[in-house]
Formats: sequence, structure tokens, C-alpha cells
Amino acid sequence: MARRQPILTLLTDFGRSDPYVAAMKGVILSSCPTVQIVDISHDIPAHDVSGGAFVLAQAAPWFPKGTVHVVVVDPAVGTDRRLLVAQIGGQVFLAPDNGVLSFLDEQLPLEAIRVVLETRYTPGSSVSATFHGRDVFAPIAARILNGLDIAKLGPQPETYKHLDLPVCHIEGNALVGEVLHIDHFGNLITNIPRQTILQRWENIDAVSVRCAGRTIRGFQQTYGLAEPGTPIALFNSMELLELAVNQGRACEALGARRGTAVYVTGPARKE
Amino acid sequence: MARRQPILTLLTDFGRSDPYVAAMKGVILSSCPTVQIVDISHDIPAHDVSGGAFVLAQAAPWFPKGTVHVVVVDPAVGTDRRLLVAQIGGQVFLAPDNGVLSFLDEQLPLEAIRVVLETRYTPGSSVSATFHGRDVFAPIAARILNGLDIAKLGPQPETYKHLDLPVCHIEGNALVGEVLHIDHFGNLITNIPRQTILQRWENIDAVSVRCAGRTIRGFQQTYGLAEPGTPIALFNSMELLELAVNQGRACEALGARRGTAVYVTGPARKE
Amino acid sequence: MARRQPILTLLTDFGRSDPYVAAMKGVILSSCPTVQIVDISHDIPAHDVSGGAFVLAQAAPWFPKGTVHVVVVDPAVGTDRRLLVAQIGGQVFLAPDNGVLSFLDEQLPLEAIRVVLETRYTPGSSVSATFHGRDVFAPIAARILNGLDIAKLGPQPETYKHLDLPVCHIEGNALVGEVLHIDHFGNLITNIPRQTILQRWENIDAVSVRCAGRTIRGFQQTYGLAEPGTPIALFNSMELLELAVNQGRACEALGARRGTAVYVTGPARKE
Repeated sequence: MARRQPILTLLTDFGRSDPYVAAMKGVILSSCPTVQIVDISHDIPAHDVSGGAFVLAQAAPWFPKGTVHVVVVDPAVGTDRRLLVAQIGGQVFLAPDNGVLSFLDEQLPLEAIRVVLETRYTPGSSVSATFHGRDVFAPIAARILNGLDIAKLGPQPETYKHLDLPVCHIEGNALVGEVLHIDHFGNLITNIPRQTILQRWENIDAVSVRCAGRTIRGFQQTYGLAEPGTPIALFNSMELLELAVNQGRACEALGARRGTAVYVTGPARKE
Repeated sequence: MARRQPILTLLTDFGRSDPYVAAMKGVILSSCPTVQIVDISHDIPAHDVSGGAFVLAQAAPWFPKGTVHVVVVDPAVGTDRRLLVAQIGGQVFLAPDNGVLSFLDEQLPLEAIRVVLETRYTPGSSVSATFHGRDVFAPIAARILNGLDIAKLGPQPETYKHLDLPVCHIEGNALVGEVLHIDHFGNLITNIPRQTILQRWENIDAVSVRCAGRTIRGFQQTYGLAEPGTPIALFNSMELLELAVNQGRACEALGARRGTAVYVTGPARKE
Repeated sequence: MARRQPILTLLTDFGRSDPYVAAMKGVILSSCPTVQIVDISHDIPAHDVSGGAFVLAQAAPWFPKGTVHVVVVDPAVGTDRRLLVAQIGGQVFLAPDNGVLSFLDEQLPLEAIRVVLETRYTPGSSVSATFHGRDVFAPIAARILNGLDIAKLGPQPETYKHLDLPVCHIEGNALVGEVLHIDHFGNLITNIPRQTILQRWENIDAVSVRCAGRTIRGFQQTYGLAEPGTPIALFNSMELLELAVNQGRACEALGARRGTAVYVTGPARKE
């Protein structure tokens, strides 16, 4: 059977005005000219590991099995931080050991993980201290695309780094979470799962959401069903509670930012 | 004969810092791993249907026949707005029924159009109310790439939505139009076709353009032939009247914005 | 032997919100549907030829031999400026004769260069005066991808344009250069090569770098080894002196911009 065209994605905080992303692509294409390269994003805020972790976890699961994902949000490049390769949900991830896989490995099963013995695959003389994306990640990713078994890349670590991700919790009668991500539309994506709310309250219409001093009653199905300009709550495509404004920007309408607390309250539960 | 590698384009207002565009690509590649995906733009201003319509009409006609274009500028996602699939000029367009095809279908012949019976192709349980790009557009686009006849996607509509696009008109001796689009260089692209001006006045050098209180006499061939800093008028690569400043930004030099009126005047015509 | 999938890159100052980049891709794919198109960048500042030259020189050398690079940073589009095609380091470059190849041809050997006889390959009637990217560069690039020998595109020029690039020089006991590029992270990339410093001073720890009134002593290996917030000097992945701030923005911390002078001083050399 013919091998399928391999797919590789890139997720970085490199932006798009410098030569960095293209240099990585050039290195990969030099070793694996048939790969289809997809940009997940290069607009992760500089050094924002948890922001990168969020975007990765929401994008990568939609790719086909066998996809190789290269994640370079790596403020500690060139220090002794380790480089990981992991097989998660049938896909391969090459990423620094800084917690950037933290959301993802809660969503999909971790099937294998290795600490990459970098110097075995990238001769030291050609490796800069500041651009491992080009000099380490890219050539190793190309090796993986060309069939190298990730088990051969290095030993299995006993642990690897996880971020202390904010988890929603109960306070009295309220479910308390926070704004996890503000998207391009200004929508406030929280860390409160739809399921957690549905399990706690039967009558969703009697539930309120409070954020930045504003209270929103009940939940809408989608943006366009709401009055333009009015803040609404809904369950989004990530199965998370989201605050939005139809044709507006909730972050500005509410004055909220990443980390702003979100309270969900409803009728007291009968025991 | 071997089938050519299929080509698909994406045009959205999603921006590039979120997981949205990549999730769509992942879904498409999962069903059609050989497709070549081209980004037309993801930087259409949020909810700007007519802005998306303009960019689509200026980009899509240059693609080869058989290209599948997916347009997700869709402020009414999840409401009862319809999803259209159209064959226009030998290419296929999947777009919400909100007028985003309005410029395009004036330029190329509409050959077929259908209202997509979405639920037939996307099981309801897996469809979010807020991200049809990923849950409806992407899987249906993949079906089309894999050979599904668009005539089978649903019934032909009696009508579909058109935007009330601004059209230039005669007022006394003037041709009156407006700024349709301000491009990345700050150039003011108007809705006044070159042909309309050429048909009305024989001596182009005697024609003046007025915009935001400034009057420009005559037309230049291209930017670089003009004095840097001076506003000029020219006929651009879309065959439209454009106001520009060599190595500067006309929008700022003139204080004009989308919708600002543009007047073209010249010698009275002899009847 | 099967021909490899051809690779083409684009480098422009077009931005990403207009139809321009996509129109070029459509034209190229119409003639060469199997090409893999890679964006180097479309975020070169408008009309910034030397900025484009810098990014090109740092990205292109990493691509495989045979890659076709199309460079449209072209403020003089439509004037009598010439269009060049060059083979440099086994790759092909199509670019206006405005100096945008200036950094590149110092890094890789120029193997062939021609002035493109544009009208021979692009019928005048279909060529706009303002968008040669779409009407001239794209169709000619497609011809090259399809096997056209670049020697046939036109005559060899006697000379072609070079930018007066700033070169570092000696002033007394100091090496004087300047900031060449400020990257997405705010790092200040200078025109002072690592080799020039290493050749001049044996004891690197005794060398100081002064920029915008701040003095930095010694060199770090990489960002993450420095105190967050403190300006450091290092040798970057381009083998150039770079000023940076760990997890911060050196351009703001130092108040420096492109062109700001950089002085490197050390112990007097014994003759």
C-alpha cells in the first residue's frame, strides 16, 4: 500500500514577520519534500506556554492519526530543559518539557513518551543555542516523518512537566472558574465544562453566570440568537462555558481578561 | 487518468491566534489527506460579510476550475440561516446564505446553487451551535473534494441573499461612487469601474477625482511614477478607480474610510 | 525517476487581509497544480526592500535545491525597473531589480542571473500596471516550475542593483555596527558577525557592548540563562551579535530601533 502523504503542523510564538518559521519549513522540506505542512498558529503570545497549550489541545485532536505536531513555545531554548516526543491519541508531538502538552494529555490518551537524546540526532557543531526550532526540532521532526520510531529517540522519563492549570471548583453554592482564553472575537472562554454545570443543575434557565461584576441569566444556543450588544452565556464548541456578545466583544463589554473569575450560581440542590 | 490533487481554499474572519482555522484543516485532512489547502485570508474584520465578499470576488476567480472554496464569515452561525453550495465559473463555493457571494456572482456565471441539507451529512449530535466551520462546512467540503455531486446536497433555492452593494451613479455631471475597500497599503479602492469612466469621457487628462475634500487631476499609470506623498488616481488591477499615495497611505493622507464618497467630474459631454 | 513535488515560496509586503496573495497563488496553481507553496512572510513592512532582503537571506538558504522563490517587495511596480531571475546556491529567485537580493548573494554563490523579457511571457493586454505579482511574477514562476530554463528568460545584465547595506567597521578600539532588524520578540539583531568579534578579542568575557546608552558586559549562551528583565548580548542563530532580554523586549528595554548604533569594545590588542 502506498504511504499516505505525511502531515506536519507547526505551533509557535514566532510571529510571521521574521525568517524563523520559513527556516524551519525549509529544513523540514529539505529532508521530507512531500510533507504537507499546516500552520496551527504562530501568534501565540511570546513565551506564553499555557496559551500555546490551550490552542494545541483545541486544534490537534482534529488532525488525522499519524500527524506530527511540532510545538516551539520554548522560552528556555538552549538551557538544560528537556525535549520530549510523545504519542498522544495516535498522533506524534515534539515539544519542550515545559508543560505545553498539559491540556492535550487530559483530552487524549498518552500512549508513549520519550526524552529526546538531541545530540544523537543533531551534531552539536550545527546547533545554535537560540533557535532549536530550526536546528533540533525541524531535523528530528523530518526523521520522524521519514519513519524513525520514536521509541528510539531516547529513554522514557519518569515524569514530565505539567502546568498548574486552573480548575473550576465549588465555593458554597457557586461553581467558580476563570477566563482561560480570549479569542479573536473577544469571546471569553472559561475553564468551566458544560458537563459540570449540567450535572449540578437540572433547570439551566435558573442558573446565572457572574463575571467582572455583570450577571447573565440563562444560556443561549448561539451568538446570533441574542440581542446585539448584550452579554450572553453559552456552551461553546469546546464544551466549555463561554461569555460572548453578539457582533461585539465580550472582553471589552465586560472588562474581563484572562484569569478574571467567573461564578456560576443556581437554585440550591436538594439532597 | 489520474485525478489531479484537489485544491481547497479557506476565507474566514477567524484571525490566526486561535485553534479555529487549524481545527477546520484537521477535519478536512482527516477525510481528504491529499488536498492542497490555501488560505485566502483569515483577517476579514469580524462579522464583515461585505468585506469578505469583496476579497472573495477578487481572489477566487484566479484559482483553477474544480477548486472548492469554503467561506466562513458567518455571524449568524447556529441560527436558521441557510448554508449554500454554488458552482460559479467552474469552481465550487460553500458559504452561508448571507450575501457573501454577492460580488462574485456578478463577475462569474452562476452555474448551479443548492441549499445544503446539513443534517443529512452531519449527524446532529456532533454539531456545535457555534462552530459550523469545523462541524458542518469542513466535513461537507471534504465530501465534495471526495467527489460528492453538489446537486445531491439539497434543493435549488428560489432566491438567495444579495447584499445591497453600493453602485456608482450619475449626479449631474459627476459620477458618484464610494470607497469600497482600504487595502494593506492604505490604498482606497472605489466602486467606480475604469470602463464607466472611459466610456463617459474621451479626454481622461481633463477628468478630476474628488474625495474627502481633495481634488486629484488626471490619472497615473502606477504608484512609482508619482511624486512620493502626493495623492494620485489610477485604474487598479481590479479595473477599478483607486486613490493612492506613492510610498504612503492614501487613507491617512486623505482622511478617507470605507464608505467615503468619491466624485469623478470632467468636461460636459456633447450630445 | 519521478520528478519531486516542486516547492515555491512567496515573500511580499502585501499583508494578509487583501486578496493579493491568494490571487498570486491561484495563478500559480492554475498552471502548476502540484506545487507546494510556502509563505516566507507577507508581513515585510510596506515598501521595505532592505527588510525584505534581510528576511529572504535568513530564510531561503534553508530550502532544498530547486526551490523557486518569488519576492514581491516592489515599490516601483509598473515603472521601468527590471525584473530579475537568478540562480543562487542552487535555488531560483524571481525578484525586482531593487536590491532585495543584496544580503542573499553575499551568503550563497550567484550562479546565473537574467533580466526577464517580461512581455515575451506575459501578453501585455492582460498585465495591470499595479499588480505584477499576479500578472507577471506568478505566470513566469509557474513556467519555471514547469521546467522553463531560466537562461531563456532574457539576457544577462552587466550589473544589478545592490543596497548600500550597513557594514560594521573599526573606530579606534571599538567595533561599530548597528541594529539591522528587530524581531517579533523585540530582540535587536545587529550587523556585527560573531566571527569579527571572536577574531578581534581572545577573552570574550572582557568585551562590552554598548547600545542606546546601556553597556552590557560579556556574552550569554542563550536567553533563558539570563536574569529576566536584564539586557544581554549573545551570538544568535544567524551568527550575528544580538541584544536581548530574557522574557522581555530588548527594543523597549533599551529604547533602540533599526539603525541604532552598537559599539563593541574590549581590551586593547597587543601588536
